[in-house]
This record gives sequence, C-alpha cells and structure tokens, in this order.
Amino acid sequence: MEISLSGGRFQSCLREIRARACDVEDSKKGVKISKEDWSKLHVHIASYNNFPTAAGLASSAAGFACLVYALGKLMNVKEDESQLSAIARQGSGSACRSLFGGFVKWIMGKEENGSDSLAVQLADEKHWDDLVIVIAVVSSRQKETSSTSGMRETVETSLLLQHRAKEIVPKRILQMEEAIRNRDFASFSQLTCTDSNQFHAVCLDTSPPIFYMNDTSHRIISIAEKWNRSEESPQVAYTFDAGPNAVLIARNRKAATLLIQRLLYYFPPNSDDLDSYIIGDKSLAKDAGINGIQDIEALPPPPEIKDNIPSQKYKGDVSYFICTRPGRGPVLLTDESQALLNSENGLPK
Amino acid sequence: MEISLSGGRFQSCLREIRARACDVEDSKKGVKISKEDWSKLHVHIASYNNFPTAAGLASSAAGFACLVYALGKLMNVKEDESQLSAIARQGSGSACRSLFGGFVKWIMGKEENGSDSLAVQLADEKHWDDLVIVIAVVSSRQKETSSTSGMRETVETSLLLQHRAKEIVPKRILQMEEAIRNRDFASFSQLTCTDSNQFHAVCLDTSPPIFYMNDTSHRIISIAEKWNRSEESPQVAYTFDAGPNAVLIARNRKAATLLIQRLLYYFPPNSDDLDSYIIGDKSLAKDAGINGIQDIEALPPPPEIKDNIPSQKYKGDVSYFICTRPGRGPVLLTDESQALLNSENGLPK
Repeated sequence: MEISLSGGRFQSCLREIRARACDVEDSKKGVKISKEDWSKLHVHIASYNNFPTAAGLASSAAGFACLVYALGKLMNVKEDESQLSAIARQGSGSACRSLFGGFVKWIMGKEENGSDSLAVQLADEKHWDDLVIVIAVVSSRQKETSSTSGMRETVETSLLLQHRAKEIVPKRILQMEEAIRNRDFASFSQLTCTDSNQFHAVCLDTSPPIFYMNDTSHRIISIAEKWNRSEESPQVAYTFDAGPNAVLIARNRKAATLLIQRLLYYFPPNSDDLDSYIIGDKSLAKDAGINGIQDIEALPPPPEIKDNIPSQKYKGDVSYFICTRPGRGPVLLTDESQALLNSENGLPK
Repeated sequence: MEISLSGGRFQSCLREIRARACDVEDSKKGVKISKEDWSKLHVHIASYNNFPTAAGLASSAAGFACLVYALGKLMNVKEDESQLSAIARQGSGSACRSLFGGFVKWIMGKEENGSDSLAVQLADEKHWDDLVIVIAVVSSRQKETSSTSGMRETVETSLLLQHRAKEIVPKRILQMEEAIRNRDFASFSQLTCTDSNQFHAVCLDTSPPIFYMNDTSHRIISIAEKWNRSEESPQVAYTFDAGPNAVLIARNRKAATLLIQRLLYYFPPNSDDLDSYIIGDKSLAKDAGINGIQDIEALPPPPEIKDNIPSQKYKGDVSYFICTRPGRGPVLLTDESQALLNSENGLPK
C-alpha cells in the first residue's frame, strides 16, 4: 500500500531531518552525496510493522521514530537520539520515547515552541530483565476519540487536570524513576496503576467527557486488583493509553504465566484458533500449560475468588493477547536480505 | 416481608427521634401519651415504596426520611424539617435531603460529630415547574460497590478528591443555587453534567478504582452531549449516582418527549411489554407518539447523527425507564383508607 507523506506531521519530520543532513561518502559503494544535495534528492521508503496498527497501541509512534532514525542514518545526521526524539515528537508526541529501548522519560521542556521537549533513556531494557508484558487487545464496538483532539479538550475544560499536572505528576515521575532504578516492582506497580487511573479520571472530567476504557477494561482492572491484593506483594501492573486495550506488566515470567491463566479463564477465545488468539512470545502460554482450547476450558477459577461467587466469563470481549517484553530501540540492520527495498532499483522487493 | 431494625443505622434514628418525643393528647381519640412513655411503647411500622428499591436510585434515602418524619409526627416532635434531616442523615447520608420536596441543599457542617450536617430547602417543586425527569435503569451484569464503603476509600486514596472538595465544589454549589433561583437551564445543565462526571472521575482516581458507570451509561452521556451540542441551548442534563443508572432532566415537557424518542431509538425494549418498559408518567411516551412497540421500531435516527455513520442500537441494555418530575417532600396522609396498618389492631392490613 502506498501512502502520502504530504500531511503536516510527516512534512515537519522530513524538513527537520533534511535540515540536519551532512555529507555522505562511501568509497566502497562509490557514493558521494554532499550536504546540499539532500534537499534535491528523493528517497523510497518502505515500512513493515510486526505489531498491530490502529489498535491504540502506539504503532504510529513506533513508525515515526523509525522513520526519523532511518533517515538520520541515511543522511549522516550527527544528532544523538535525544535530539532526534524532538524531531520524531513533531510526527506524533509519544514517538519521541520510541527512539530508545528500555525505560524512557519524556521531558516536558520549558520553551514555548516545544524545542526542548524531548526524550531521555533512564535505563536500557537489560536493566530490568524480569518484566514480561501481556497486552489485551479489547474488542471495541464504539468509535474512539482521536487522542490528540481529546487531550486538547481535557487541557481546556478539566478543572482537575491542572492540579494533576502541577502537584501530582512531577512527584510521581521522580518516584517512578527511583522505582525503575531500584527494580522495585511494588512501587512501580502502584505508580503505574494509580497514574493510569488518574489519567482516565481527568479524561472523564473533560467536557464533553472522554471514555477510553470500557466495561472489559474495567473487568481486567478488577482481575488485576483482586489478584494483587490476595498476594503478599503486587504481581502485575496495568496501564491504559487512549483506548480500551490493557497493557499488563508482570513482575516476572512466573507471574506472567499466572496472569495469562487468569486472563484466559475470564476471556476465553471466540474460536478454536488459539494461534491467532495469543500472539508474540507463544512460549508463555505453553509455560502456563495452555496448548489448546481444551486447556483453557479446564482452567480452574483463580483462588482469590471467593467460592460462593459464581464467576462470570466474557468470551469474545478480548480480540487477542500479545505476549512480549520491554524491547530495544531502533537498530540499523546491515543484513541486505532483510531490506524491504531492492538495492538494485530502489523499489520494494 | 418483615425486616429487622436492629442495625446501627435504624437504631440511631430511633434513639434520636425518641429523645425528642413530646406529650401527645388527642381527646377525640381518647389518646394521652406523656413524653416519658414513648421510651416504653412499641410501634408497628409498615412501609410501601412505589419506586424501585435496590436499583441505586436512593430508595433507602426516601425510606429513612419517611421513617423519621412519620415517627416525628407520631411522637409530636417539635423539630423542623432541617433538624429532622440531621437525624435521617444518620440512617443514610442522602436521606437528609429527602425531608423536603423540590430543590434541597445538604450543608456539610463544621462539627466533628456531624450534628450540624443537615439539609435546607432552596426552593419547592413549584418554583421550577417545567423540569421533567427520565430515569434510565440500566441492566447491570456486575456486582456493585456499596456507596458508603466506596466513598470512604475515595477520601483515603484519591489525590484529586481534596482539590475537588476544597477548590471546586464550594464554587459550584453557589453557581447551582443561582441557576436554580433564576431557572437558568443552561447553567443548571452544565453544572449538573460536569459535576456528575467529576464525581465519577474521583471514583476512578480511588485505589482500587471504583467504576459506577458502565458502557451503557457512557452511551447515554454521548447521546445527551451530542443532542445538546446540536441545539442552540442544552435540552437535557444528566447525572449518575453510585450506580450505572442515568437520571436525565429535560428542560421542559417538549424536550422530554424528544429525549424519550432518542432513548427509545437507541435502547428498544427486549420484549413487547411496553407497559413495564416505561413506568411512571406514561403520558410522556404518548405525547412522544409512542403507543406500541411498532412506534419504537418506526422512530427515525435523531437528526444530530451524521448520515454517514450507521447508528447502532443497544436492545436490552436498559431495563426500563421511569418518567417523573421533581416531587414534594414527606406528607402526613389523613385518609384512613390509605393507611397501611389496620387502626383497630395495629397490624398490617
């Protein structure tokens, strides 16, 4: 599929990265492009995403980060990742964080024009290797609010947002940095969950109110809260972005298998096709003893449910689960066979 | 059904009202009871409610207000309604407001023991005679949080609640009093809706989060917001208490018929029994042209929907609608035939 890059967000990124282009010389390939030439040259861009797009899972952030990073490499841009993040931010706000792997902080900045609003890496993905992520992609019957226009209305109309932004978020960011530094899952989980809930609270305090979470999101929160409270320490954190999908972060692989058992118990698949119901790292479901639909049907209710309450199931309310882990940032691949463009004619393979 | 009054909330009300009992003398009936006798006497209490109970519609508030008022009349208690409201409040917080009809303000009070937390009437129900109320009783699949325990957790854990209570609510109460005084529906509606949303926002900001509204509640809000925005001025206000049911207040009877058309368009009944689907003042549905199920099926989509969006319907998501109006407070009935107890033997008829 061919898409247009004429939109303002693409053009901002292209303009900014071109302005930082440098001379490129590769005697082996016989390439010599001077700084000034870049504004006259055209490039073919081919993109492939192994993550679901338009599911409210920030795939456009990943795309803009990749675009800016790849063009920067091509044009021999000397700026570091943080400086590139300020460019990617103009494509999609959250794209600035995707220039790095691991744990990333988006610094608000002070400048009116946003030039110092950029991302820094707090720690790479190896720093806290235990964490496992399970994403529940929730079936949605409703049209969503665009996250950009939604946030503008919240800023304009929510009386709680200002208090949150001024008094609460700055403290929480410091606490979160410390929790990450110390790999303190109890604090990490507490901060992640309460801040997700407060973000959605100010969305609800917007006029007209914005509802990103739906009944299924609420149920997933209840499952996580009930489980965490039944254990000595939290086993899972949850967070919701501008949509109903749950991002669940388990403290380690053992907790992740217990989590996936709970999720599959409450949200069995609509069809027998388990392979498209649990995607990503499929070994997690295997470790949880789930090899087929009959294993899901045989799952016992989680022990934290009191025996006298019949537990309801919500078949079909989750579209699929993605099992993954905190990942790395953009990487320049050197293996020609992985290229999406043909190096002979520059056209898609 | 016989119920026990041994619970603390009933006992508080009974103790407080007995402590204020006075001499009663009715020479016509040959009754003479001295103040001191009341503590030794027993009474039969029979109660009937024409409003749905346990539906999250404050039927217990109505019940406690009625109990305190009726006992006060029986025991010749001299206290006025506001003083009685402080007693009813000990049965159920919101019961204090139900000692009056029309528009009532619950004054927080300053005393640690709550003795000055009571209700005053701002205006009686005749002051703003235009308003029409439609209540959507929403089908609920989930167990609810008790509203009393929920509020305690919000006070303890929500960081937004304090800001709301200190900075926002006091101003809004003054604005609401003025809107009621001036019968200013635009302000009344704006304040009602934004404050309902903010109440639910602080519930969501509680740890663990409290969700009273569900997807159906959200849809009703969207229908009301979209309609109000398409008109020159708001036609309907919405508010949600500690549950998913929508209380919708239409600016006048004309707006109420347009509202009921919209509600029935989106939420057609599950069965053909229209008589139990629209209860209370049934003339409203008749005025809206709804005499049978076929009239609901023939309803056109509301004009504020854009033509290109196919409008989804949510059959069965609402249990039933109640059509009513702001009502009067407790009234002592003198017609013996309406009594629930037999005046000969004091037992239920």
